[in-house]
Amino acid sequence: MKEEITEWFKSLQDNICKALESEDASGFSKSEVKFKEDNWLREEGGGGRTRIFQDGNIIEKGGVNFSAVYGDVPVFLKNEDSNSTTVNSSKDTFYATGISIVIHPKNPMLPIIHMNVRYFEMSNGVWWFGGGIDLTPHYVDEEDARFFHFSLKTACDKHQPNYYTDFKKWADDYFYITHRKETRGVGGIFFDRLNSSNKEDLFAFVKEVGNSFAPIYTHLMAKNKNITYTELNKQWQLIRRGRYVEFNLVYDKGTKFGLETNGRIESILMSLPLNASWVYNFEPMSNSREEQTLSLLKKGIDWI
Amino acid sequence: MKEEITEWFKSLQDNICKALESEDASGFSKSEVKFKEDNWLREEGGGGRTRIFQDGNIIEKGGVNFSAVYGDVPVFLKNEDSNSTTVNSSKDTFYATGISIVIHPKNPMLPIIHMNVRYFEMSNGVWWFGGGIDLTPHYVDEEDARFFHFSLKTACDKHQPNYYTDFKKWADDYFYITHRKETRGVGGIFFDRLNSSNKEDLFAFVKEVGNSFAPIYTHLMAKNKNITYTELNKQWQLIRRGRYVEFNLVYDKGTKFGLETNGRIESILMSLPLNASWVYNFEPMSNSREEQTLSLLKKGIDWI
Repeated sequence: MKEEITEWFKSLQDNICKALESEDASGFSKSEVKFKEDNWLREEGGGGRTRIFQDGNIIEKGGVNFSAVYGDVPVFLKNEDSNSTTVNSSKDTFYATGISIVIHPKNPMLPIIHMNVRYFEMSNGVWWFGGGIDLTPHYVDEEDARFFHFSLKTACDKHQPNYYTDFKKWADDYFYITHRKETRGVGGIFFDRLNSSNKEDLFAFVKEVGNSFAPIYTHLMAKNKNITYTELNKQWQLIRRGRYVEFNLVYDKGTKFGLETNGRIESILMSLPLNASWVYNFEPMSNSREEQTLSLLKKGIDWI
Repeated sequence: MKEEITEWFKSLQDNICKALESEDASGFSKSEVKFKEDNWLREEGGGGRTRIFQDGNIIEKGGVNFSAVYGDVPVFLKNEDSNSTTVNSSKDTFYATGISIVIHPKNPMLPIIHMNVRYFEMSNGVWWFGGGIDLTPHYVDEEDARFFHFSLKTACDKHQPNYYTDFKKWADDYFYITHRKETRGVGGIFFDRLNSSNKEDLFAFVKEVGNSFAPIYTHLMAKNKNITYTELNKQWQLIRRGRYVEFNLVYDKGTKFGLETNGRIESILMSLPLNASWVYNFEPMSNSREEQTLSLLKKGIDWI
């Protein structure tokens, strides 16, 4: 079945890239900007198809990356599971495939978005799905947050009644910048090591999540691309991007996994923005939209 | 003796701030920019005196921070030493004081500089000094690197014949961005857990290192402040600053210590530049100064 999953992830990459290219060009006179593809091989087994989008009309920098890698089970996974029976022998091998997306828009009124869906299996028969989508507005727009969460809930509800509630909470906990005591954005859903007696059902759920990405983000692109903004809005965007960098380099498990397993650095760090800023002790003005945004970067908000 | 060391670190902070303010103003018509001071208290004990310099003539953003904190020995130190006898009891307390400096200049031809000197002791009688200085040029100038290392060697040689060689190697290993396979800059010296039967001698060495900072950096400021530069030079500076951010958030032990012990975030992350950039897969032109710089970001270069 891993071949089927792998092929589906590849087709998802194709579909998302086409949808983003098309929406980025829609209504603009500049000719359509295309994703630039870099194929790479991993020395220890497998490789990937990195696609990077730069300097579009709406998108400043984004990546839609596919990879499928295999080899001996990494040491840190063995250590992690040292008290369990999941890794039985030093001869176990693994296979991991997935899609990772981060999009940084030019307009500070359009949120940053991230999605990851992945499948992992080991030669001992253990397997799981993982993934998540989260939205990081520079300025929280409650209507956008509601639309985003409603779309995810709709996708989840087709599969299990508890998925949205459970995975929304998981996202609040995962996408959290502990040292800032703030969430990365308005959250979304996050799940890991999903396993069940019915693999087809889980795969169908992961497909549902993957397929929800393009409609969600192209809607947000179309809705927000023409909102005017000020120099202050742009400065605040750079500061929020700084927080995004902090999350990805300090906490993100995918990034850590990549850095520790000698992954392709430029593919891993495509998630970082074109530019970011750190201003010492920046404090938003009272009753400003910046202050309002900070007040909404909290766990446990019911956006719907 | 900890009072004497603490007072000396405070006076070092005063002297370095004065020297940097004065050099930043020298030869410019704009009135002298001053460090802005923030005093803070640590809930668990102690506090600090953060001094931030912003938007000078030469310096874009910099911090010269003093702190003296105490309390129960942090858990991670206990774990680290679980196989040794350094922490005997859960009732052990610690006292830590030091100075941390990072200076980001405006001109890409002037290097970023960092220094840290610190003293740590526990109620069980264990104590040590630690510290280091390293230079991170956006463009490696071999004359500057030689001057920098020669100054450090001169300081080291007054105390122990092996210090420079040992601590230069330690810096090469410490200030290394593993995932990029490059050093952060041209290195310097780094030492940790220095302990001996003669505490006065070690303190004298740490003073020597601390006192070497202002003459070194004011020399580099004066020498490089008026070198003209292009847009490409500025873009490259932002990319190199991105690497600086990567090192500090992924590897730097001081930053990790701060983030994990609920330190004052704005004081810890003053080390990050005003702005930084990540361009996907940026590759310098053949035979360019950017390419030459990359070729010199290696361990084991004898700069003297």
